[in-house]
This record gives sequence, structure tokens and C-alpha cells, in this order.
Amino acid sequence: MFEPIKPDLDLGAALFERLSRATRVGPGIVRDSYGAGEQAAHDLVRSAARQLDLETATDALGNLRMTLPGKDRTAPGVIMGSHLDSVPQGGNYDGAAGVVAGLCALAGLRRGGVVPPWDLTVMAIRAEESSWFDVPYLGSAGAFGLLDPNCLSVPRSDNGRSLEATLRESGFDPQVIREGRRLLDPGRVRAYLELHIEQGPTLVARGLPAAVVSGIRGCQRFRNARCLGKYGHSGGVNRPDRQDAVAATVALLHHLESVWLREEAAGADLVFTAGELCTDAALHGPSKIAGETRFVLDIRSLSEATMTAVSDEAQAAAQRLGEQYRVRFDLGPRTDSPAALMDDRLRAKLLGLLAQPYEMPSGAGHDAAVFARLGIPSAMIFVRNENDSHNPEEAMSLEDFAVATQALTSLLLDFPL
Amino acid sequence: MFEPIKPDLDLGAALFERLSRATRVGPGIVRDSYGAGEQAAHDLVRSAARQLDLETATDALGNLRMTLPGKDRTAPGVIMGSHLDSVPQGGNYDGAAGVVAGLCALAGLRRGGVVPPWDLTVMAIRAEESSWFDVPYLGSAGAFGLLDPNCLSVPRSDNGRSLEATLRESGFDPQVIREGRRLLDPGRVRAYLELHIEQGPTLVARGLPAAVVSGIRGCQRFRNARCLGKYGHSGGVNRPDRQDAVAATVALLHHLESVWLREEAAGADLVFTAGELCTDAALHGPSKIAGETRFVLDIRSLSEATMTAVSDEAQAAAQRLGEQYRVRFDLGPRTDSPAALMDDRLRAKLLGLLAQPYEMPSGAGHDAAVFARLGIPSAMIFVRNENDSHNPEEAMSLEDFAVATQALTSLLLDFPL
Repeated sequence: MFEPIKPDLDLGAALFERLSRATRVGPGIVRDSYGAGEQAAHDLVRSAARQLDLETATDALGNLRMTLPGKDRTAPGVIMGSHLDSVPQGGNYDGAAGVVAGLCALAGLRRGGVVPPWDLTVMAIRAEESSWFDVPYLGSAGAFGLLDPNCLSVPRSDNGRSLEATLRESGFDPQVIREGRRLLDPGRVRAYLELHIEQGPTLVARGLPAAVVSGIRGCQRFRNARCLGKYGHSGGVNRPDRQDAVAATVALLHHLESVWLREEAAGADLVFTAGELCTDAALHGPSKIAGETRFVLDIRSLSEATMTAVSDEAQAAAQRLGEQYRVRFDLGPRTDSPAALMDDRLRAKLLGLLAQPYEMPSGAGHDAAVFARLGIPSAMIFVRNENDSHNPEEAMSLEDFAVATQALTSLLLDFPL
Repeated sequence: MFEPIKPDLDLGAALFERLSRATRVGPGIVRDSYGAGEQAAHDLVRSAARQLDLETATDALGNLRMTLPGKDRTAPGVIMGSHLDSVPQGGNYDGAAGVVAGLCALAGLRRGGVVPPWDLTVMAIRAEESSWFDVPYLGSAGAFGLLDPNCLSVPRSDNGRSLEATLRESGFDPQVIREGRRLLDPGRVRAYLELHIEQGPTLVARGLPAAVVSGIRGCQRFRNARCLGKYGHSGGVNRPDRQDAVAATVALLHHLESVWLREEAAGADLVFTAGELCTDAALHGPSKIAGETRFVLDIRSLSEATMTAVSDEAQAAAQRLGEQYRVRFDLGPRTDSPAALMDDRLRAKLLGLLAQPYEMPSGAGHDAAVFARLGIPSAMIFVRNENDSHNPEEAMSLEDFAVATQALTSLLLDFPL
């Protein structure tokens, strides 16, 4: 066991400040996947790594690895990572905190003169937020050669440019995805560790600075669901003759809320969200029955069976309510991201490093899911965060960040695997 | 009684064709209130009136009157009218059919050498569709000096320009509204007659070409309703901690549908529509809980008591569900347009002029409501129309138009008042 070593939290404070300044647009943070915002974050973090004299390397998909070389350079190393992109108008901590924590840990080790037994790498992963490209875990899955080449034609949601064109314009190589080429060998990864802000209110409610993550909820999402009815005059069509897309969509969403309540009462793990719902601004009107809605159904659980049951129920209800309301639902393609469990030994060790040990599932997806599904022992630590995430009001205190980063640093120094 | 006279239906066919050509934008018709589309329709109709040697006059708010002079020019005359504006992406017949029918009738009288006992005027009314300016019956209420001067600051929904600025730019006089000046004396109007397409499927379903209107449903509308919740990560916030604006709005709309079903079962006349419903495209996302929705509630009935009961219930439910879902509803100001009954003698006479007499309420508002509420005997005739109205697929056959226009023409020739 090494001497007690502290992470460099001054570096952390400085990096958060610089990231915020470089990527704030109006009220929120915009680090668009393979766009200017994400690149600015990468540039900033790479520069910090070089000042720490870490080895830096960017792979063909833009993932950045920053390595403190170990005694045995041939032994599989430990990766600490997270992503540097954000949702549109997101906060400063979702993703970035995990990369900054890794650098704080390595800076602490450097300062303490520690040479680890194997390479310790901080990985700044690309494009985790599927709000830009609807491809789950684009950066990490891409690094392992796991992406379906068809994803190259997926458009970026804001500007419609394909992933292929965007990669090329950013100086990266779409051919890697087309060939399914591995940029990272799972056999060379001893373990994957990810610090992330909690994206819900659990730790705030419980007064805890940090928690160990038991597993990551999977997601089944209908991102391009539509209801097609018929426009008409709001006063001139009586109820039995209407083909009202809003009324039908309301009925479907109301039904799915009742399914959720039923599953919850039965003890199932489930969250259900329709975060986008819009009539067509070019065709709707205050005195018109709406002929179309577009919406998203997002279903998450630690259990594949629960997710699939709710997705199937959504399809069945869409069929049934479509007939009842004389409209047609088209839920569109479903994007699946399976659930992932964390490594038992790493979980136990991390729990032991917290003064107030607490464990909870992650509702959101994380790159750790990609590593875990490849059989790489993976662990995550959540940091308390006010105001949820994916919004400009994310708020993590440096004190809580210090608690979690210290646990991560101590884990590196007394690694159980 | 005059000799049997037929309306000039060739003129009608030609006018519909010209109107469509002049004001079609993409799939639908755009005759924007006090904009280029409405003006094009006015220009076209005025030109046709001049070819019929009718007297034409445009008032200070742009309403166009086209008069066949009567024997006694001092006697109160009959006005046949409707509006020439359309909703955005509307159809060719909503509004225009009533103006065209009046011209067909006067052309028939001219051709038959008829000099009526009093003036017969076709009035092409401005700005009836409140989708542009949220001011009910802007043109007709304005002509009678009935508008609240505050309406001058109402913005046009598409470009945000105030009514005052728009009127001025179009060459009309906002001062008339500010002073509440009357451009038309109700005492000079013997009766008001309006032909309009049916805006629902009733006549299609019953196989009838036309119907007499018993009354016009009023409208109580919350045009700028909002639900304010809190954005958050769709996977990271469990149900009891959410402030989900979509879930709360769905609950409110679902509740109001149940109120509707209850009122309907009790025999009340009611239609309820949320024709616009949107999360904020700048802030929403597929993996975010929505922090805001904007929507419209449109409540219509022949009974003021029913409308007010539903509006009150909407407010009460918004309060109750806001607490339940930890969000805040703000339904915003309510725009009211009272119901209006049609004249019994004119209704009876018109019914007698139909081979298949049928009477029904109007679900939509019409300028006839303004005349009726001033005590001017008013009547309306509906023409069968496929695919509802306020959409590009409106479809009225010239045969059905002929049936209704003939009834109108015959009424003029054997007027009961």
C-alpha cells in the first residue's frame, strides 16, 4: 500500500472555472458532440495534462487519453474517465467532473512522487450525450469498435449534418466505424472508474456527499414518435368526428403514466419520460384541432424485462388508442441501451472508502456501461449535485467533489484487482 | 314578389379560382389579416364588383362594401357578408364563400334587371380569423366601434407587429379604434346574411348540401397557457421528485377531456380543444424532463353557463394538479366571445327555401355573431364541406354552393323583414 496521497483539488477548481468560461453560451453550457464546444473542452484538458507531464494521445474518433506511466508498462492499466460533451444548455459538471477528477488524482500522485504499478489513464470520451447524435455511447463504443456502421448517416439533431460528415470535418476518421476497428483493446484495461455528478435529487435529500453506483439503468427510447390525425376547426367538429392528435397523445401518455404507477407499486425499477412533445408550429393554431404531434418516449430501468414490457405496452396502447381516437400513431424506431451492473469488488472497496457509505442505482446511462458490458470490471461514484443535471443550474460543491475524488485516489493506491 | 332569379354561378367559379391562384402558399391558402394575402383577396373581389357596376367603398379599417342600390336609398339595407382572411395554411372557402355568394346573388339580380326595394350590400369583412390578431371579430366589431382600444397593442402572431402598426402600414386608421368611432350604423342595417362552409363533418355525414344555422357557439379561450416545472435528467429523477411539465399538462388535458365527456353525457353543448401544445425546442431534449409547456385551451358552447363552468374547472384543476405534480400552471388571460342566436323569422324563411330543410348550431364563431348581438336580425346558411376547415383540404362543391346561394338569392327577393 502506498502512502496517503491527496488529489490536487486546486487544479480541479481551476479546470471547472476554465471549462465554464470556454463553453458557456447564454445561461448554459454547450459542449456539442464533435463541435466547437466539446473541442474547446478537450483542448483545455489536454493542455492541463501536458502541464502535469502526462502522456497524451487522441484516437481516430477524438477520444483523448492522458496517462501516468506505471512501473510495468506491459500490464493492463486502469482507466478513469467520463465524457466532455454536454446536452444543449446543460451544466458545467455532467461529464466533465469525471475527467477533472481523474486529472486531480493523477496530479496528486505525481506530486506525491508515486509511480503506480501499471499505467493510470484519464480518458476524455467523446459524444456521450445522445441529444446531438442519437447513437448511445458514441465515443466509448466507437473506441471498442462496437458501433453499427449505419450510425454514420445519423444526423446531428441541431444542424442535420451526418455523423460521417461531422467526423471528417472535425479531422477524425469515420472509416474506423465503417470497419468496426478497435482503437482500445478491452484486454489492456484492468478496470474502468467513473466519477459523475448525481443527476437526481437523492443525495441532496439524504444529506450525503457521494454514493457508490450499483448499476446503470438501461434505456429504451422512441425518439421520433408521431401521432397523425387530421386538422380541423376547433368549434366545428364534435367529439365523435374528431381525429385530434393532441387528445390521442394525451391519452397515450396518461395511460403510460398509469402503467408506471402500477410497475412502481409492484416494486419494479422504472422511470418514464416524454421530454419533447410538440404540435407543428407551421400548421397548428389556437382555433384548429391539431393534425399531428411529435414526441419522445424514454423508458429506463435496471431490468430489461421491465423496459421491454413497458415498450410493448406503449406499442399496444398506441394501436388501441389510435383506433379509439381515429388517428394513427407511429412510434418510429426504438433505440435500446441495455442496463449494466458494476463490479462487486470495486463497489465494496469504494464503499469502504466513504465515511458515509451509500449505494444507489444510476438512472442515467454512462460510458461505464460500455466498459462493464465488455466484461471490464467497472465502478462509478456519484457526487451530490443540486438541481438535477442536463440544465444550466447543475450545482456540485468542491467539498463534495473532494470527498469522491479522494475515494477514487485512495482506490487507485490500494487497488483490489 | 320578384320574378325567379338565379345567382351567377359562373362568376362564383371564376372568383374561387382567382382567389386560390392569388393566395396559395405551398399546400394551403394564406390570407393574412391586414397582410398581403388578405389584401390580394380584397383587390380581386373589388375588381369583380366594379365589373358588376356595384358601388364600392372601403372603410377606415379596410372593410369593403359593394352595393347594388335600391329604389329607396334612405331605407335600411340588407348586408350579405363574410370575411376574406384565412388561417395560416387554411383552405379556399372559409370566409371567401360568403363574399362570393353575395356577389353571385347581386350579379344574378343585375342580370335579371332587378332593382331591389332597398340597398343590397356585400360586405368583405377584415380580420375575422383570430389566429393572426387575438381579437375576436376584429373587422366587424371594429366597423361598429365595439373594440377595446387596448387591442391596438395586440401583436400579430407571426411577426409580432402590433395591430396599430399593422393598420397604419396597410393604410388604415387605428384612430378609429382608439376613439371607438362607428363606421357602420346598426340602425341602417335591416338584416345580415352570411353564407359559410360548414367547418365540421355533419352535412357530409347526413348527405345534405346545406343547412340553416340556429346559433353560433361562443368561445372562451386561454391562448397563452403555460406549465412551469423543472428541467432534469430523464433517467436520474424518480417520480416523486419530478417537476415534469409534460406529465402535469397531460394530466390537466386528460382531466378536461373527462369533464367534456361528463358534460356531453348530461346533454350540454360543448367542444374542447388544445390545438397547440409544445415543449420549448430551445431547452427540451430526448433525455430531459421538460421544464415547460405552452398550450391553448379552447372551450366552445351555445351556453355561456357551460363555457364558464368548464373554464372555472380548468383553473381549479390547474391549481390542484399543479400542486400534485409540483409545477405551476399559468393559464394566462382568457379571451371570451359570447354565443349568439340567429333571427327566428329569417331562419324559418331560409328553411322553407331548402329542398331538404335542416338546422344545426355553428361550432365556430362568425361575424354574424357581432351583428346579432347588436340586435340586427341575422341568419346564416352552411354549405356542405369535406375535410373540415382551417386546413388546405377544405372542399366545397359548386353544386352545394349553388343550392345555398340560390336560397340566399330567393330570400333577398322575398324578404320577410
